Amino acid sequence: MSHGFFNRILRVDLLRREVSIETPGEHFFRTYLGGWGLIAYYLLKELAPGIDPLSPENILIFAPGVVTGASLGGSGRNAVGAKSPLTGGFGEADVGGFWGAELKRAGWDAVIVTGKADTPVYLWIKDDEIEIRDAAHVWGKSTLDVEAMLKEELDEKRLRVAQCGVAGENQVRFACVINDVNRAAGRTGMGAVMGSKNLKAIAVRGTGRFEPADAGKIRETAKWLSDNVRTLYTGGMQDYGTAGGLQYLSSISGLPTFNFQEGSFEGAQKLTGATMADTILVRNDTCYACPVRCKRVVASDGAYKVEPEYGGPEYETLGALGSCCGVDNLEAVAYANQLCNAYGLDTISTGMTIAWAMECFERGLLTTADTGGLDLHFGNTEAMVRLVEQIARREGFGNLLAEGSLHAARKIGRGTDKYAMQVKGQEFPMHEPRVKFALNLGYATSPTGGDHMHNIHDTDYTRSVEGMWPLGIFEPLPADDLSPQKVRLAKYHIDWQVFWNCVGLCMFMPYSKAQIRDIVNAVTGWNTSLFELLKVGERAMAMARVFNAREGFTANDDVAHWRFATPFTSGPAEGVRIPDETMEAALALYYEMRGWDRVSGAPTRAKLYELGLDWVVGLL
Amino acid sequence: MSHGFFNRILRVDLLRREVSIETPGEHFFRTYLGGWGLIAYYLLKELAPGIDPLSPENILIFAPGVVTGASLGGSGRNAVGAKSPLTGGFGEADVGGFWGAELKRAGWDAVIVTGKADTPVYLWIKDDEIEIRDAAHVWGKSTLDVEAMLKEELDEKRLRVAQCGVAGENQVRFACVINDVNRAAGRTGMGAVMGSKNLKAIAVRGTGRFEPADAGKIRETAKWLSDNVRTLYTGGMQDYGTAGGLQYLSSISGLPTFNFQEGSFEGAQKLTGATMADTILVRNDTCYACPVRCKRVVASDGAYKVEPEYGGPEYETLGALGSCCGVDNLEAVAYANQLCNAYGLDTISTGMTIAWAMECFERGLLTTADTGGLDLHFGNTEAMVRLVEQIARREGFGNLLAEGSLHAARKIGRGTDKYAMQVKGQEFPMHEPRVKFALNLGYATSPTGGDHMHNIHDTDYTRSVEGMWPLGIFEPLPADDLSPQKVRLAKYHIDWQVFWNCVGLCMFMPYSKAQIRDIVNAVTGWNTSLFELLKVGERAMAMARVFNAREGFTANDDVAHWRFATPFTSGPAEGVRIPDETMEAALALYYEMRGWDRVSGAPTRAKLYELGLDWVVGLL
Repeated sequence: MSHGFFNRILRVDLLRREVSIETPGEHFFRTYLGGWGLIAYYLLKELAPGIDPLSPENILIFAPGVVTGASLGGSGRNAVGAKSPLTGGFGEADVGGFWGAELKRAGWDAVIVTGKADTPVYLWIKDDEIEIRDAAHVWGKSTLDVEAMLKEELDEKRLRVAQCGVAGENQVRFACVINDVNRAAGRTGMGAVMGSKNLKAIAVRGTGRFEPADAGKIRETAKWLSDNVRTLYTGGMQDYGTAGGLQYLSSISGLPTFNFQEGSFEGAQKLTGATMADTILVRNDTCYACPVRCKRVVASDGAYKVEPEYGGPEYETLGALGSCCGVDNLEAVAYANQLCNAYGLDTISTGMTIAWAMECFERGLLTTADTGGLDLHFGNTEAMVRLVEQIARREGFGNLLAEGSLHAARKIGRGTDKYAMQVKGQEFPMHEPRVKFALNLGYATSPTGGDHMHNIHDTDYTRSVEGMWPLGIFEPLPADDLSPQKVRLAKYHIDWQVFWNCVGLCMFMPYSKAQIRDIVNAVTGWNTSLFELLKVGERAMAMARVFNAREGFTANDDVAHWRFATPFTSGPAEGVRIPDETMEAALALYYEMRGWDRVSGAPTRAKLYELGLDWVVGLL
Repeated sequence: MSHGFFNRILRVDLLRREVSIETPGEHFFRTYLGGWGLIAYYLLKELAPGIDPLSPENILIFAPGVVTGASLGGSGRNAVGAKSPLTGGFGEADVGGFWGAELKRAGWDAVIVTGKADTPVYLWIKDDEIEIRDAAHVWGKSTLDVEAMLKEELDEKRLRVAQCGVAGENQVRFACVINDVNRAAGRTGMGAVMGSKNLKAIAVRGTGRFEPADAGKIRETAKWLSDNVRTLYTGGMQDYGTAGGLQYLSSISGLPTFNFQEGSFEGAQKLTGATMADTILVRNDTCYACPVRCKRVVASDGAYKVEPEYGGPEYETLGALGSCCGVDNLEAVAYANQLCNAYGLDTISTGMTIAWAMECFERGLLTTADTGGLDLHFGNTEAMVRLVEQIARREGFGNLLAEGSLHAARKIGRGTDKYAMQVKGQEFPMHEPRVKFALNLGYATSPTGGDHMHNIHDTDYTRSVEGMWPLGIFEPLPADDLSPQKVRLAKYHIDWQVFWNCVGLCMFMPYSKAQIRDIVNAVTGWNTSLFELLKVGERAMAMARVFNAREGFTANDDVAHWRFATPFTSGPAEGVRIPDETMEAALALYYEMRGWDRVSGAPTRAKLYELGLDWVVGLL
């Protein structure tokens, strides 16, 4: 195997049911790395502006990064991308598990799917053997059933399956792509695109090996992580998973509650990772080659039957379907999580769309006449669970919610769009800008809208100031700061996180920037630098912005949500808000730092040239 | 010793004859590193705009970098800076030898000299003991005599002396600072500033040790260089010094000849490094800790008596006093070089000011009535040598030339300024833009004008393409190209070279970017990155641009010289020119890439903030 990449991208034309191979060359992989970068490249190159995201014209791309598949914690990531049916702009979602590493082992750097099959199909990749197979028998089935059926019919116990779920079949705008039954490439509605193409699943089995250029260095780094995993994760990631900090966040008004009206939830203790560990946790699970084991496996025989096969709720899920809906029933949230994984729904947008409906209901903007009789007061656990299923099946009120909060609000009218907690149509994840101001800048300007996969700013500058030193930033900055230095930090940090989504590394890894540079070099044999890697992130971000500009987005779509300019009326951070003038000044500076045009919102020619994107200049 | 720096800057107030210590802290050293960066910081902080560079108000700074003094080839560098009497803007000159390393061994990171002594003085630094001593007895003496006299009176054989020479005493606008008798901090007239302060010399003896954070790593790198020095320098740097490529350059029209009217010199073979080795070369010399030994020591008992103590001519000198004056007499150029070192003259500006006079003479714009009877046709060896001495002594026609070509031309009038080969008043070094187009961008925009210390672009993209890979640039670009990708390369490369002038490394070192990052880390114990180091360079450049803007420079002062838009009329590159429209487009793009305002020429607020220069924003 070539180090880190094979220079083999599988192209699948569903209309003609043909496959082909593309070999873009080493410089391509070094310039874009994979993931977000590769996706942005092909969407810009090949997608005509203005197409319906749910039409056959859309292109769906599954892309690991060059590090995906290395025998090293955090390398089990891949991205899925297309024009988003939720936002109408750049769509990209990131996921862990085992599927991406399996695709690499099969010898493929990415899969690009074009067209639409006339009947349901699935793609079967076994190393070099590629088949487009009939999927009529698995259409409409749960993700768990689909995976079991495909394993059986292909006689491959070690099969890895990525699939769109019933929600994707039904083109729920925030349907996700599920792999390994319980891992979600959650955001921007990639499952709906998959469903719209009649592509039920991509089943992969690879028997090749991942051969890094410097296997010793990879082994050494893997051993370092394994040996130090307990001390590196002081937050209890192993014991409590991503929900380990949920109760703490509530104590600082950092846990979005009641559709972001509050940041502190009375029932937080009931949802937090420690409680899960004490109650429904069966065991930990992990992703490819990772010793951290932050994934939860939960089960319950109580009022809600929770099966371990569907994993367990992440922090994002506990916030969106829990505190944001006012629900403090852990078992119910775990069950709703199971439904999302079984049907292929993004738990964040699902929860936040329900939370939007609840706030509208409480405000009298929606009534039982709209909801099919459902009482949507915050805290109605039963209604929350019911709606998850209705959304996936597009039944009843769920058919409206399946459009996402913004589309639904626009259909309903009555000023309900005000309470849709979203940017560009994508609902916010469970991170509250009023307790970390720079996040608001990320939310407002992200090409994918309310997204956390490249916008979480707390890590580097509060937990690990030293992590910013190689960027020339030596002083920690307070969370409630949007000074020019915070704007600078946000810019660097977002570029760095986008890079992670390109290279195929999990954002929870404790590697230093130097270690990550060394990992990329050890995998690929390159002589890369932090400079080059940050530029990859900046480049990938710039391409996504160009994509959006071409789709009609302008700077006017980079909106800071009004709610974050409104003070908390209670709780630990009572009175805290991000003043409009603070936000506007930060936004203007951020634009100028990034080299984005203040009107079009797109990168300037000079910035595109500086990123080596000469070919993109003509697209604007 | 603290690793790489002591956090001790020596401040010398010549008016009050007082010294003090400044301790700016570790973040300061990590942000600016030393050299250019440190100089720009203090000039911006402390110098009032609009002062006369030769008045007591000017500040003169001697600054090694954090790596200066490490036991490692290339670490014998320091910078000297002040407001330039030649350009009226940011003045900075770089030099090798042993003085900078000695200053570090004495425990000092820099010396900042303010005010003017009422009588000639010199500064004596022995570790912590600092004395401002009378210099009346050495005033007017040759650099060789001064060094010998100070060694004797201070009873220190291992003394290292930096001094201004008689040219500096006479405030020749391009007087340099000479250390170790034959090493010149040549550009921008720093010797004149030193002379204007009645500061004859800074004599240093340090008995401390340079203790890197990781001595093993430094030893290992030093050994690597030493073991591989022959194969690393394929150009014959050891055998032929910097003049090794002189004849080759002539063969591609790359050797400035007849005041840049031509690029190919009939007598090149007589001046080239190989000829020197065959004739007047006595031995090689070296700088602190360097195994390359590129320095020449020459001697002659011929018509021109050349003493080995003054070293030997560099490529720059052979071009400026040789081919640019049409002189092919190696011994005469070596003698002129000796005069420059003895008097403290920058050989480049000296040669180029004489060459300017010669071109004007040939064009009839100057006559023997102006020159005091000297026939200034190109090739008049005797006149060239005579003028060097006249300039240093400000005698006869030399008194006019001592102002530099632009000032002299303005005094003379008659359109002679057209033939002054300079930008911002500083004469071009021996690098011809018509055979490397990006150089023209550097010349036009350098804060120090016609300067090569941060503008030589050929190395990385023709000789070592791999060196650009860590910047994300993978394809070599032709020399006669000013495409957007060349502009990008120029920007990165200039930032990188400015960084070298901050950190205290010699530009001739063959270290890769990763090695240099590792060297900085091994010296300091930091966790720096290529990103951080490039930003240091960009930051230092931005500060120099702000300095110039404050002095009244605007974008209109970033002028591409008309001659480079004019084709060679003969020679290997006959017909080659850089069209105005090509240059204008490149310049506009370069500005935008750098975040420089198209009118003021200064960095934008956003760029300053992005470089962490909040304190500079208010200065504009």
